Amino acid sequence: MAPSAIPPETTTALDHLPVNVSNETNGQNGKINEHQLKNVETTSLVLRTFRCLIADLCEQFKGGHPGSAMGMAAIGVALWKYVMRYSPENPNFFNRDRFVLSNGHTCLWQYTFMHLVGYRNMTFDQLKSYHSTRTDSICPGHPEIEHEGIEVTTGPLGQGIANAVGLAMATKHLAATYNKPGFDVVSNTTWCMVGDACLQEGVALEAISLAGHWRLDNLIVIYDNNQITCDGSVDLANTEDVNAKMAASGWEVLEVADGNNDVEAIVAALVAARSSTSGKPVFVNIKTTIGVGSKVAGDAKAHGAAFGAEEVANIKRAADFDPEKSFVVSETIYDFFREVKARGRELEREWEELVADYGEEYPDLASEFALRVKGEFTEDWASIIPAKGDFPTVPTPSRKSAGLVCNRLAAKLKTFMVGTADLSPSVNMIWKDKTDFQHPDLRPACGITGDYTGRYIHWGIREHAMAAISNGLAAFNKGTILPVTSSFFMFYLYAAPAVRMGALQQLRTIHIATHDSIGTGEDGPTHQPIELAALYRAMPNLLYIRPADSEETAGAFIAALSAPDTPSIISLSRQNLTQYPEYSRRDGVTKGAYVFIEQADADVTLIGVGSEMGFAVRARDVLRDKYGLRARVVSFPCQRLFEKQPREYKAAVLGYRTRIPRVVIEAYAVNGWERYVDAGYSMSSFGHSLPGAAAYKYFGYDEELIAERISGFVSVVKSEGMESIRGEFRDLNVNDH
Amino acid sequence: MAPSAIPPETTTALDHLPVNVSNETNGQNGKINEHQLKNVETTSLVLRTFRCLIADLCEQFKGGHPGSAMGMAAIGVALWKYVMRYSPENPNFFNRDRFVLSNGHTCLWQYTFMHLVGYRNMTFDQLKSYHSTRTDSICPGHPEIEHEGIEVTTGPLGQGIANAVGLAMATKHLAATYNKPGFDVVSNTTWCMVGDACLQEGVALEAISLAGHWRLDNLIVIYDNNQITCDGSVDLANTEDVNAKMAASGWEVLEVADGNNDVEAIVAALVAARSSTSGKPVFVNIKTTIGVGSKVAGDAKAHGAAFGAEEVANIKRAADFDPEKSFVVSETIYDFFREVKARGRELEREWEELVADYGEEYPDLASEFALRVKGEFTEDWASIIPAKGDFPTVPTPSRKSAGLVCNRLAAKLKTFMVGTADLSPSVNMIWKDKTDFQHPDLRPACGITGDYTGRYIHWGIREHAMAAISNGLAAFNKGTILPVTSSFFMFYLYAAPAVRMGALQQLRTIHIATHDSIGTGEDGPTHQPIELAALYRAMPNLLYIRPADSEETAGAFIAALSAPDTPSIISLSRQNLTQYPEYSRRDGVTKGAYVFIEQADADVTLIGVGSEMGFAVRARDVLRDKYGLRARVVSFPCQRLFEKQPREYKAAVLGYRTRIPRVVIEAYAVNGWERYVDAGYSMSSFGHSLPGAAAYKYFGYDEELIAERISGFVSVVKSEGMESIRGEFRDLNVNDH
Repeated sequence: MAPSAIPPETTTALDHLPVNVSNETNGQNGKINEHQLKNVETTSLVLRTFRCLIADLCEQFKGGHPGSAMGMAAIGVALWKYVMRYSPENPNFFNRDRFVLSNGHTCLWQYTFMHLVGYRNMTFDQLKSYHSTRTDSICPGHPEIEHEGIEVTTGPLGQGIANAVGLAMATKHLAATYNKPGFDVVSNTTWCMVGDACLQEGVALEAISLAGHWRLDNLIVIYDNNQITCDGSVDLANTEDVNAKMAASGWEVLEVADGNNDVEAIVAALVAARSSTSGKPVFVNIKTTIGVGSKVAGDAKAHGAAFGAEEVANIKRAADFDPEKSFVVSETIYDFFREVKARGRELEREWEELVADYGEEYPDLASEFALRVKGEFTEDWASIIPAKGDFPTVPTPSRKSAGLVCNRLAAKLKTFMVGTADLSPSVNMIWKDKTDFQHPDLRPACGITGDYTGRYIHWGIREHAMAAISNGLAAFNKGTILPVTSSFFMFYLYAAPAVRMGALQQLRTIHIATHDSIGTGEDGPTHQPIELAALYRAMPNLLYIRPADSEETAGAFIAALSAPDTPSIISLSRQNLTQYPEYSRRDGVTKGAYVFIEQADADVTLIGVGSEMGFAVRARDVLRDKYGLRARVVSFPCQRLFEKQPREYKAAVLGYRTRIPRVVIEAYAVNGWERYVDAGYSMSSFGHSLPGAAAYKYFGYDEELIAERISGFVSVVKSEGMESIRGEFRDLNVNDH
Repeated sequence: MAPSAIPPETTTALDHLPVNVSNETNGQNGKINEHQLKNVETTSLVLRTFRCLIADLCEQFKGGHPGSAMGMAAIGVALWKYVMRYSPENPNFFNRDRFVLSNGHTCLWQYTFMHLVGYRNMTFDQLKSYHSTRTDSICPGHPEIEHEGIEVTTGPLGQGIANAVGLAMATKHLAATYNKPGFDVVSNTTWCMVGDACLQEGVALEAISLAGHWRLDNLIVIYDNNQITCDGSVDLANTEDVNAKMAASGWEVLEVADGNNDVEAIVAALVAARSSTSGKPVFVNIKTTIGVGSKVAGDAKAHGAAFGAEEVANIKRAADFDPEKSFVVSETIYDFFREVKARGRELEREWEELVADYGEEYPDLASEFALRVKGEFTEDWASIIPAKGDFPTVPTPSRKSAGLVCNRLAAKLKTFMVGTADLSPSVNMIWKDKTDFQHPDLRPACGITGDYTGRYIHWGIREHAMAAISNGLAAFNKGTILPVTSSFFMFYLYAAPAVRMGALQQLRTIHIATHDSIGTGEDGPTHQPIELAALYRAMPNLLYIRPADSEETAGAFIAALSAPDTPSIISLSRQNLTQYPEYSRRDGVTKGAYVFIEQADADVTLIGVGSEMGFAVRARDVLRDKYGLRARVVSFPCQRLFEKQPREYKAAVLGYRTRIPRVVIEAYAVNGWERYVDAGYSMSSFGHSLPGAAAYKYFGYDEELIAERISGFVSVVKSEGMESIRGEFRDLNVNDH
């Protein structure tokens, strides 16, 4: 490995720095400029300038969150100027430190430091677009992943810290998989900023437990401990011992007493955190004052509103600045940060050299690594998915079908990291010879094995963190890791805020959601989803796919794998499903809906969906045999995919030009199906605790009854004409429950 | 207060019991029968009988969760026989201890103890209906509130412990409000059983923090520490120091080493927990073995499946029972529990006497208390809601309108407990002179006041626990407390699993959801709900109500208060809304939809909704002035209320008999509206970070553009006929974002 060529001004007197600053041994070390760190006057000028700038930026549009951004000024200087390893001129440098602003409302703080250190797009003009009406702003009200230098979109509290856990896992996993002695090709640190709020949200608490369990010592969470939230003092709602709680969760805890001004102490703590040998994630508790430098310092009033012109002037006076001047950033400030770019270029150069040498030493591994860096699969996934003929034709639960597809993919594709929220025996996601993702020294009990190369993840009973951390895994470097989560469909309601964040961020994750209807049975209404599909069918950029049999399950995976910017939920049965190899088609699934059974001179179109397809097919037989009615059947696994089809295709499938009614049969609330059908055989209440088959029967899912009701509906239409039902949707499954 | 008349057999040798058992001073004391407690042989017989019975009950239908139920046998004996204060013959006795089975899958454990102690409906025949196809079973796969003796429905993990926090809060609040020296008319304890899973779920962790903060020393959580979940050892996913974490969260921690057999030690710990003077909630960590007595004891295999006939026989042999006989419960067992009923009757009698004496001493307070016990409001809420003329006619945000209604209700009705997930400045739920719900000794920081009489709750940034704990408040005694929660609408996605549990349990809570559309503005797409209404409109037994102005907001509260068995979400704007006193009608809201502006010979019906009503009304003007088209306007705040109306009403509002098209205008995903309209002007993507007005504009919400698109659509219909659009829904808001 080539020695670092450190720019001259960054090599002075490192020995005299406090705790461990001079002691770092961890990979490419962007050395710390102690000369400037000890220059109290310059530092003070930087902090004062920064705070006045924040006040000005909020004041111009009379909004925003100035208080925490001001309180975190010194933390920002420590991070962006001294500690973090990144390259402002190439924000996507693969081995960069990842930074997550979990308290995303303070984004102006991040944008401003990104500007000062020279992120290529973050001009002063852009900085001033915060809270403006500019539609091309890269400074939205919360950080958004679309913009260079932002690792993940944050804002909903608690998500960011969970994402950070995923980013740190990704580093651990890739390092364990690809690093070789002397070749730490993956060695970055993940930094995460949290406020008081993130430490209260359940998703964060779940993620904190997992980070401690996995001993992610490359994760450093910095707590902006200003003890203020919207309502006022944190003590209004939280009086626990945060440090003790973190320690009990397996974290190392460090503290900084004066986070407002003592950049040196912050740097020392952050460097100590990075170089710690505790083998634990580190929680750096830094005491700050919200709105420091203003009249409302330490008060909730500083949190979520601009200060007003008069107080902004006061802030400037107190900071020894001209109250008449706004947006003042002297050249001294830019000079102060100027070394960062050069250091970043140097980090990149070092890493590129390292990777080049690695390629000579380990050519096979290096070429696989190169594919992973590019975000490409290392094998052709399409050839791995079983053919129709490979599936059993006996009735099969689609959760089992999903295992038949996904286990093969996971075994062969290193991109896959597959996990479950403690439902391994139910979700069929374990493949032969899988290795668990675990800390290699974790052998506390009966038969636990695994290490960081492992790609099977035991999430515990933490659905929300599972999905949120998976977003972090997916965001590490797009395409490098494809997380597959699994649980009962009902419990994707727990995970919903994180599933949404994945869809919003265009991060591909595949969610395996089993036990997807009242067919799940005796666990009862708490476990039987009725209304949840309505959420996911309405959620932008999410594929909610309900396959009807094994062949359609293969189609669901193909659809998910063909959509690099879109997460999918594959919704599967607990119970056995009839297989329809003569009708079902994987390519039909990828179109969202297709004609399952065509019928000349049909009287009605039945829409069958996923786990309830059998009712549609059997009702068709009863309609024919008992009522002399001809029904065609459409399989409709995914509304969003169907919407993407050309109008002609949609018209052909649904029969826009024919004058026969359409009826959907599904054991969910019908909401949303009205777009495609004139009547629904659906659920209008919560479920009931009965064995699956009995639960279906209890709620009228019985082909005889379905056919009777549909026959009655078709008769009305025949006698009174299609116009008689126009605009008045019919619920055909009316029962007393 | 009358001295307790203790039945003779329960008064022996209490002095010799371990820690504190003999020391209890806490209200009506159902004294502990030490004679039986010391009878090791009888206890062993009870435990062995219980475990064999569990194995038999699971075996008959080849399913269920036997392992934990067997492991918790001794805990059950301690609770139902010795420690809990309740009356099996009157499960609704007001001052009973509340018991919550947060690990709800072990419900067979609870049902079996309920049978043994003589709950009036829990016959042996009913016990055997667990997992059967009997639709009249009161033994569903998870405990359900509908059945006597079950305090809350549990199953989704983590919910139960949060509910228990709510139940304990209810006791503290009612006790602080109504108890007088010598008259502890509300004095019950809340017991909650949790497994390993509940301690991992975020909602539980949020609730644990709050219970510690509020110092709910009447809450005792019993941890069935068997270290097994579905995947295997808890160590697979959780290696934290649970006791230390609970202590850091403000809990007292007690431990029992042998939870399988040592009933005496368990009783001692539980009694110590109840009589503790630590002023903290108590966590009793009891080590047990899942499936104890079976071959798979201590293994995940014992968790979620029946053992099989052979192993059930082995279990019986090991228990010294006849392997050929099933469902054996000897009279000795019933004798063992026989005292419980008498003790329960005595507890009731004591309480009734106490309340009678209280009525003589404090007649006014007692009559108010009597109303609360009956679940009735103490004043006429209808007369408190402002009249139309009381509202300002200037543009007003509906979040402010909600404050104008709810603050008056909360000030006058003691039934209301109103809280916010740390958004007090945004949600307008604070009324003049409100008192915070806080522990009275909590004065750690700047200006925090409050006590347990307080009815304003600072939930912290814990939306999920807010809703889940509120379910507990509402479940304490139906109607006694009406919880009102508040947050941004988007964050009711965090709370959704608990909102669902409230709807499923028919518990009335009012959720105040502000910032309900892209109009919320610059916080960006993470804060702008697009798809969330689709979930809540599809959720059974939930009213999602979007009022358009102050008058409709009054209507929303009337609808919510008129539905004692249904929770509501009242969905409100951040931004100013035009007031329509000439059109808006509170009684229209209670019908779900109504004609807002009638129009003779209309060309089109526009459906306006909530915060976007203004676009519909203004588009109507543009259609008239620019396109010569006549539009009628329907206001449609609540789909579920509309569905309850007679067909004639629905037809009149929507114009089933007319041949003009209907268009909805709303800045949400359109899913579900297709039931009522032929076309939608709606959102098909996530939002964008822009100030509210600019965000609307960016997404095409502009009356000129809306009118132009609707005019085009109406032209097509006029020229090609209504039949041309049949069954093919039109999205009119097509843009490039």
